[in-house]
Amino acid sequence: MAKNAFYAQSGGVTAVINASACGVIETARKHPDGIGKVYAGRNGIIGALTEDLIDTSLESAEDIAALRHTPSGGFGSCRFKLKSLEKNKREYERLIEVFKAHDIGYFFYNGGGDSADTCFKVSQLSEAMGYPIQAIHVPKTVDNDLPITDCCPGFGSVAKYIAVSTLEASFDVRSMAKTSTKIFVVEVMGRHAGWIAAAGGLVADHGIPVVILFPEIEFNQEKFLAEVDAKVKQHGFCTIVVSEGCHYPDGKFLAEQGTRDAFGHAQLGGAAPVVANMIKDALGHKFHWAVADYLQRAARHIASKTDVEQAYALGEAAVNLALAGRNSVMPTVVRLSDTPYKWEIGAAELKDVANVEKFMPRDFITEDGFGITEKCKAYLSGLIQGEDYPPYKNGMPDYVVLKNNPVAKKLPGNFEL
Amino acid sequence: MAKNAFYAQSGGVTAVINASACGVIETARKHPDGIGKVYAGRNGIIGALTEDLIDTSLESAEDIAALRHTPSGGFGSCRFKLKSLEKNKREYERLIEVFKAHDIGYFFYNGGGDSADTCFKVSQLSEAMGYPIQAIHVPKTVDNDLPITDCCPGFGSVAKYIAVSTLEASFDVRSMAKTSTKIFVVEVMGRHAGWIAAAGGLVADHGIPVVILFPEIEFNQEKFLAEVDAKVKQHGFCTIVVSEGCHYPDGKFLAEQGTRDAFGHAQLGGAAPVVANMIKDALGHKFHWAVADYLQRAARHIASKTDVEQAYALGEAAVNLALAGRNSVMPTVVRLSDTPYKWEIGAAELKDVANVEKFMPRDFITEDGFGITEKCKAYLSGLIQGEDYPPYKNGMPDYVVLKNNPVAKKLPGNFEL
Repeated sequence: MAKNAFYAQSGGVTAVINASACGVIETARKHPDGIGKVYAGRNGIIGALTEDLIDTSLESAEDIAALRHTPSGGFGSCRFKLKSLEKNKREYERLIEVFKAHDIGYFFYNGGGDSADTCFKVSQLSEAMGYPIQAIHVPKTVDNDLPITDCCPGFGSVAKYIAVSTLEASFDVRSMAKTSTKIFVVEVMGRHAGWIAAAGGLVADHGIPVVILFPEIEFNQEKFLAEVDAKVKQHGFCTIVVSEGCHYPDGKFLAEQGTRDAFGHAQLGGAAPVVANMIKDALGHKFHWAVADYLQRAARHIASKTDVEQAYALGEAAVNLALAGRNSVMPTVVRLSDTPYKWEIGAAELKDVANVEKFMPRDFITEDGFGITEKCKAYLSGLIQGEDYPPYKNGMPDYVVLKNNPVAKKLPGNFEL
Repeated sequence: MAKNAFYAQSGGVTAVINASACGVIETARKHPDGIGKVYAGRNGIIGALTEDLIDTSLESAEDIAALRHTPSGGFGSCRFKLKSLEKNKREYERLIEVFKAHDIGYFFYNGGGDSADTCFKVSQLSEAMGYPIQAIHVPKTVDNDLPITDCCPGFGSVAKYIAVSTLEASFDVRSMAKTSTKIFVVEVMGRHAGWIAAAGGLVADHGIPVVILFPEIEFNQEKFLAEVDAKVKQHGFCTIVVSEGCHYPDGKFLAEQGTRDAFGHAQLGGAAPVVANMIKDALGHKFHWAVADYLQRAARHIASKTDVEQAYALGEAAVNLALAGRNSVMPTVVRLSDTPYKWEIGAAELKDVANVEKFMPRDFITEDGFGITEKCKAYLSGLIQGEDYPPYKNGMPDYVVLKNNPVAKKLPGNFEL
């Protein structure tokens, strides 16, 4: 009889991680000869460790299909990194115990860099611990910082959200600039890599004066204020997109700049209000600021069609790789051309993916450090192509909440995390 | 020959104020016998005072039609309130001078409460200063605080944006709550009235535990924390929608709660980080927070179809009222039924509109002050019905930027504001 599969979502969720889940489950269902049931981990890998598995075979085809247009992690995710086999053999032994008990032969792990590392470790279990398991990593991260793959599912939709929202808010500021707000600051995610911030730079081609603050570029207050001043003098207003990871040469984040609440707690606010007040102090302009936070990574309502298609295709490819007998591998997006954006699915060895972080190349950022180059625009443009609206019911998106019925436990006792 | 019309946008712009402009201009173009050219004020009423008029007749039919799907103020807006006739006769004399010079007999003013007051004052000029002018106010405000009309264009789209975004982010938090973020706080606009915050309450019917902080309800920290604690204990997570106008019994805004930057400046951050940190201190939960700011009122990409239709219809109705010889009037939305939401256009006298602010009725807010009632849901639900997506080009919304050619000045000298 065909082995069952384990699927789990890991780390920060996205607008399209469920589209990958949909790709995995729908494809597995087409191959009952190769894959038995797909069991999802409730709250990610924790579900495997605690034998808290979800039987996805009890979900209707309609509900599984609806995952494609539903943001967030339909089975729950977690922030939990397995230590190395040497440091915590107990966890790996437990995983194998659970896999054995439920006849699991496939491990699909849907996550970012840390998860790729975990998946790589699991892929080594066949040899190290004599249990046959095929571990396939399904890439996902709004940070877009995985190597080898052209991009990471989740990023294209955040990029589209940030580009569209920055354009809209900039139109707003331009309307108000004569007598009121001249500065709009939006803070975006990206603690280490500036990919999301870069997406804000796409508004420059729509007539918007924009200054980007990347984590890859050390913050220089004097140069920054001069740039904003010049743009306001020329255009009457200016938009600033600041990455949460923007920092001073000494590594201190802008968001940490001495902000204290009444109790003396540090880092109450974000980078956006710091930047906005800095401009107000130096140049005197009225400002508004926004912090998009989860709104950006959850914004399925304005997801990129390309992103949704890639997320699904990578889930589908993961299953096909498993059926082809592969282990320790991650399906990737391979770019074939920029304009029009064409791509196909490839595969990378997990040993080449784990623990490698992909930053913005320096030639994607303009020389002055405040904008994106044509090369970067050509890269980003493909990823935001197309809209893929969810269905609506009574004015609200019709997102699915699965039944998430548990698989009956077979092991005695509990596992302490 | 038919008199020309003056049209101006006033105060904070919205996702659909241009749809009203579209309604005014397209309707006027259908009645060349009644209305000559439509001149728009560049940056609102300032354009009239400084004789900086835009000749909308030079814009193509396609570009005017595109206003319907373009957020922001296409002609520029301003924050500038005319004083009373007694206190600043000079400004009114100047207006009449400009109206006379350009043969303007219609004054269409598109704005909120302050603008309704200005429009009312202008409507009195016929009598007070012997110049025949018909002043019609076109309602607009995301704050939804104008009296008589069922709602104000701009609000329905913000309501939809906040409801959708809060739902999406709440799905995200639910996915993460097991090991990470349990609290999500989103700050929304509304300094005096809690209409926008109320829209966040629509997620409760989608299984989301949500606590709303209204400006109409004095903030009680103890009760609030108990409510959040109970919801986290029951659901594992909690979403909080806080109005920027939420305040303590003494009137002090939450956003002002002693936050200081390194230079000792107050009110650096918003209410959201204050609330998030308050929960962290008392209950220890990991949080995320967002401040939507301009993103919410500019979000044409997720505009309510109902809102767009009302915005257009009110612009259209304003012209029809003018053609019918009316003065000192504002077209309104009249609600005919809740479910399905049916409405028609009515009219209100400006004397009944000016300087009246409409707050959330107490029976729209639950007894505990943290949620919305069925009555409120029935009210809000109609306003977010339908989607009205803008066209996209190359992955980005295809918003129009008008040529905005100036009308040749006819008056000597400049007018000092």
